[in-house]
Amino acid sequence: MELYLLILVLFAIGSAQAASNSADGALCGKAVPKSATYLKPKASRDKRIQDLLSRMCWDEKVAQLGGVGGLLSQNSSLNVQDYREKAQLHNGTISPGSYLNYAEEAVPVLSDLIVASKKEHRLGIPYVHIADAVNGPTLRGTTLFPSTLSMGMSWNLPLYTKVAEVLRDELVACGINWVLSPEVDVARDPRNGRIGEMYGEDPWLNSEYAAAYISTMQEEDSDGFMKVATTIKHYLYGTSIGGVNQASMLGGVNHIYNILALPYINVFKKVTPATTNLNDAGIKSLAAGVQLELAIGFPTAFESLAGNQTVAGVVQNVNEAVTRILELKFKLGLFDKSLEADAKALKESIVLLKNDGVLPLDSVKKVAVLGPLADVINTGTYAAWTNKENGNNTLLDAIKAEYGEENVNHIQGVRIVDTDGADIDTAVAAAEEAGLAIVALGSVAVGWEDSLVGYRTDGEGNTHASLKLPGLQEQLLEAITATGVPTILVLTGGQAFELHDSAQDAQAILHVFHSGEETGRALVNITTGRVNPSGKLTLTFPARSEINPVYYNREQSDWQGAGAIQFPYLEKNYIYPFGYGLSYTTFEFSGASLDKSSYGTKDKVTLTVKVSNTGKVDGQEVVQVYFRQKVAPLSLPVKRLIGFSKVLVSAGSSKTVKISIPVQDLGYWLDGKYKVDKGTYQLFVGDSSADSSLSSALTAVVA
Amino acid sequence: MELYLLILVLFAIGSAQAASNSADGALCGKAVPKSATYLKPKASRDKRIQDLLSRMCWDEKVAQLGGVGGLLSQNSSLNVQDYREKAQLHNGTISPGSYLNYAEEAVPVLSDLIVASKKEHRLGIPYVHIADAVNGPTLRGTTLFPSTLSMGMSWNLPLYTKVAEVLRDELVACGINWVLSPEVDVARDPRNGRIGEMYGEDPWLNSEYAAAYISTMQEEDSDGFMKVATTIKHYLYGTSIGGVNQASMLGGVNHIYNILALPYINVFKKVTPATTNLNDAGIKSLAAGVQLELAIGFPTAFESLAGNQTVAGVVQNVNEAVTRILELKFKLGLFDKSLEADAKALKESIVLLKNDGVLPLDSVKKVAVLGPLADVINTGTYAAWTNKENGNNTLLDAIKAEYGEENVNHIQGVRIVDTDGADIDTAVAAAEEAGLAIVALGSVAVGWEDSLVGYRTDGEGNTHASLKLPGLQEQLLEAITATGVPTILVLTGGQAFELHDSAQDAQAILHVFHSGEETGRALVNITTGRVNPSGKLTLTFPARSEINPVYYNREQSDWQGAGAIQFPYLEKNYIYPFGYGLSYTTFEFSGASLDKSSYGTKDKVTLTVKVSNTGKVDGQEVVQVYFRQKVAPLSLPVKRLIGFSKVLVSAGSSKTVKISIPVQDLGYWLDGKYKVDKGTYQLFVGDSSADSSLSSALTAVVA
Repeated sequence: MELYLLILVLFAIGSAQAASNSADGALCGKAVPKSATYLKPKASRDKRIQDLLSRMCWDEKVAQLGGVGGLLSQNSSLNVQDYREKAQLHNGTISPGSYLNYAEEAVPVLSDLIVASKKEHRLGIPYVHIADAVNGPTLRGTTLFPSTLSMGMSWNLPLYTKVAEVLRDELVACGINWVLSPEVDVARDPRNGRIGEMYGEDPWLNSEYAAAYISTMQEEDSDGFMKVATTIKHYLYGTSIGGVNQASMLGGVNHIYNILALPYINVFKKVTPATTNLNDAGIKSLAAGVQLELAIGFPTAFESLAGNQTVAGVVQNVNEAVTRILELKFKLGLFDKSLEADAKALKESIVLLKNDGVLPLDSVKKVAVLGPLADVINTGTYAAWTNKENGNNTLLDAIKAEYGEENVNHIQGVRIVDTDGADIDTAVAAAEEAGLAIVALGSVAVGWEDSLVGYRTDGEGNTHASLKLPGLQEQLLEAITATGVPTILVLTGGQAFELHDSAQDAQAILHVFHSGEETGRALVNITTGRVNPSGKLTLTFPARSEINPVYYNREQSDWQGAGAIQFPYLEKNYIYPFGYGLSYTTFEFSGASLDKSSYGTKDKVTLTVKVSNTGKVDGQEVVQVYFRQKVAPLSLPVKRLIGFSKVLVSAGSSKTVKISIPVQDLGYWLDGKYKVDKGTYQLFVGDSSADSSLSSALTAVVA
Repeated sequence: MELYLLILVLFAIGSAQAASNSADGALCGKAVPKSATYLKPKASRDKRIQDLLSRMCWDEKVAQLGGVGGLLSQNSSLNVQDYREKAQLHNGTISPGSYLNYAEEAVPVLSDLIVASKKEHRLGIPYVHIADAVNGPTLRGTTLFPSTLSMGMSWNLPLYTKVAEVLRDELVACGINWVLSPEVDVARDPRNGRIGEMYGEDPWLNSEYAAAYISTMQEEDSDGFMKVATTIKHYLYGTSIGGVNQASMLGGVNHIYNILALPYINVFKKVTPATTNLNDAGIKSLAAGVQLELAIGFPTAFESLAGNQTVAGVVQNVNEAVTRILELKFKLGLFDKSLEADAKALKESIVLLKNDGVLPLDSVKKVAVLGPLADVINTGTYAAWTNKENGNNTLLDAIKAEYGEENVNHIQGVRIVDTDGADIDTAVAAAEEAGLAIVALGSVAVGWEDSLVGYRTDGEGNTHASLKLPGLQEQLLEAITATGVPTILVLTGGQAFELHDSAQDAQAILHVFHSGEETGRALVNITTGRVNPSGKLTLTFPARSEINPVYYNREQSDWQGAGAIQFPYLEKNYIYPFGYGLSYTTFEFSGASLDKSSYGTKDKVTLTVKVSNTGKVDGQEVVQVYFRQKVAPLSLPVKRLIGFSKVLVSAGSSKTVKISIPVQDLGYWLDGKYKVDKGTYQLFVGDSSADSSLSSALTAVVA
């Protein structure tokens, strides 16, 4: 559950007829005949809404704008009196309480409540069942996926769509109608603790993922009802200063449109039907501000309107807002469907950052599994999970299962954040004895009810101003790498870390970001070589915590040049670039070309490149296309991702990859208007955003 | 000289009549009779401008918008051919070249050139002589003051006004008409290398200083001519991300008006005559963008307009721009005055950050002066100075003069930024032998031609992403404090430093920011106790480099709360707060009260407080008033400085201080409109911005 008022925007809801100007409906308080239009499934949605609105009294309208949250305590028990009190003026949405309830216990309770509530309501208006779903439904017993950032690292939209399908079907099975996802915030400040909930730092890439998510969630069922409604958040003006969770926001108009708003705009373009175009609900809210504020906590701003229909100017607004929430409820089929509710592996999101050749591991006789994160499922903030359940499938569990418990020596060495209770010497001895060390370090981000919540340095509410490993973890790593024993560093946390010095003394570095329930096994599948890693960073890793900005899609002057006079002196601002990630094989790109040299503004530019697997194992590569407009009337980023394709190439063979880019996508926003200039565009193709990884410029002229 | 195109805004120039629409003036190219209106000193300025404009051809107009810069090389020699070439299309402004020319040599050369140029000009249009003047005129032999930040730390407007008078009179003596100061940028990011050129982090305080500066500079002489024109810079949209000098800017409308624009707005209110109000030139440019771009470097944007008067829409703009530059020239008296040109201590800007009682020093027999900054005049970027000249009056010189050369052992110990050539052991031995160590450390910011320019980590073009001391300076300090020898840390650099660990092991810490020529002696006057320090920080010092934002006038949610989950764990974000600075005496505040409890919107709130000097020496205290509006329709800073007064109080006595605050100053900007709400305001008085230093709230109701 969000800790503050969530600002949500509903979109793609169509165009309900304009709301009336009266506070009470004309039939307010009157008995409802069975023949009432709004009760007829075959009547048009607009007519049903209008009819229902005309039967509603002022307080009934206001109640639709409020929500009931925090319903169930950890044993799935319902405080009925508390519910009754809250429900009086909050009939819009309902949301579960504790994330740690088992679906099989909580769902029937919630379902009964929702069914009963609809029956009891004077007009039979149902609740919308609303929930967070970053890693999955926030109910135990459902699938735990890695959180958004990890999924972003896969660079695999079809795979992500499959994940979203599973997630959606589980949500439907739990009776959840509306999710508070996707989070399209652009991860511009590495100090922000909520990066794990975002896809990464690129606005275009984020919009691709979000569009896939929304299309999947909002798919219609066989009766034409929307399966699960979505929320793009945390709305637009979203780079809080210093990475502080709720800090104030900066951003000029052009900056907003070109960076912060781009994912929203792209999402609207992609998932909104052609008839509801950029002038529709989405863009309207973009221009005019938030249109609907839904509160999960108490008290709410809207609540105060009850009994007070005389406040100037609010009646029309409330009518409009009620129209929207009712429209959604009809669209979801909540009026028409029965509300009784009935009550799986991801490895492409792991990024191999460094490999001196130690991976994949050959014959392993003994292994020392070290570090405070080896036996932890580090889920991110919004997971129905607790590490009380560990022993399930942590990295340690998976390694024991692989090599036999008797060959695995687990020493934590240091605590997660505390600097007392360290026993680095024993960890060093274990590494030396085993001859192989897997060191699991990172930054804990777990749910509010998790047993490890007190050790959090990542996730909502946290700012990791320093990107160094918490506590004495770096000292542990330094001591282990100093032994000379081959060391594999496994990182976890929804963030970049400072990875110089002892981190670079490790022979291999894997970053899993946030864990799902299969992450431990996925890691072992990678370290053994059964799976060839193919994740790519959607974040730039800064060379030092203090260096900011580091994101690749900077403007020219945002980084100081080579021979930089930025202090401390650094050759490069970053240590790993956006788009970067290693494989167990090697790829070569050749013959990059465009289909034409000159294009009309409605054309597509098609880029062709040959990708050869020059190594000894099959592998997936992410072909990435970036572009730059040569001359523009405002400062634009030095490069912008505009296409990618993940391809499987067998060892020793090659594939020709074609990526098509609509010329219309090469534009930018200037003073609130979208422009695509005629002129010269440079396109680059490669396996990361670093200049050294990219082809020389392919020139496309738009004439 | 600025390294990029300077964007300047002229204001307070009055309201010249609207420019005509024609490219060539009606009398373009015609001979000029002696009776021409513009040549008559007694004609009205508007008529003179109109007449002159009517006689100008297009290229002559364009030439007024350009400037000739970089004129003199280091030996005051002029490359005449180069000048001739540039001057063809650049007759607006002229500026000197090297900062290292002596005034007595350079001024005659420049003066002759300016005189000759006016004579040679077909219409007799003079140049405006334009120059940077951060520390003083950029000519050697003039007074070197500490740079802007240092002067800000004095919290003494009358003293600052005196400095500005000296500076102005020296500028006039050098024939300089227009200075590229004051810099009112709000120092919001400690990583910015140019903070030394700013007054500090508070918009209101900056505007007070800037207003004093401008009023002083622009004073009329006995003939009614403006003495020196000023420039407020770097114009408005001025918090570049990451503290990178030319990085892109962020800022929403309300943020701009309330934080970044506030100094400009206040300055306009204070220095613009009543008839030219907020709707005048200043605010017009605020709303409409820059109105006049003057380039010192080549080529320029305006230059390309020569011979091209047909470009749509530019004629009117050029006419307007030319009108403005001509108006300034008339106002300065350049048309009417002879252009032949004729050819002093600041201790209140030094801030005592820590004192365990070691200061003032008692009887000193021997002293070890350590560190790479002890024998350096660290001026900031824009000074007519070079450390080739040292031996003049560095800290080392002043200490030798005080205690006798034979009693002073100077060991640099470490180099400024390089990590080789260190000799910490010798420095430690010197400290132990002397029994007293003065360690001068910091970050070098000197002019482009200074012999130390290669060691710069502060100043224009530099980003100090890390606020740690450069090179091995921290190691030196650690070694010295570890000896147990009493240690005085003297810091220099236009920036905050990370001051924990070994810095806090020093018995006393003084920060001089940027040095003037008297800073060495001023420091010794303080360490000996002849002067009681009274500087106060205009910057908040962060606890760690990574913690950002730290400025005191944050919004509520910009800092994470006590028991903060910000990582690394810190009790406080800052180590020294805005407004902080120690004295050799102690002060107590008592009896704080307001004159009334309820005010009209046109009233002044008068706060009275008794300040008692409870120590044994006389001293100056800065009484500071902050306020907070209890309820507002947008997020406003938790506190805002709104008044201060520096008072001298004799040992054992007390003074009653009254500070009056116009209710009109308690407002804020919302969506471009200035508002003062009726309601409750809380005022606080104290000796720094820290809550613990402030009185309990005094309540003023605006009714």
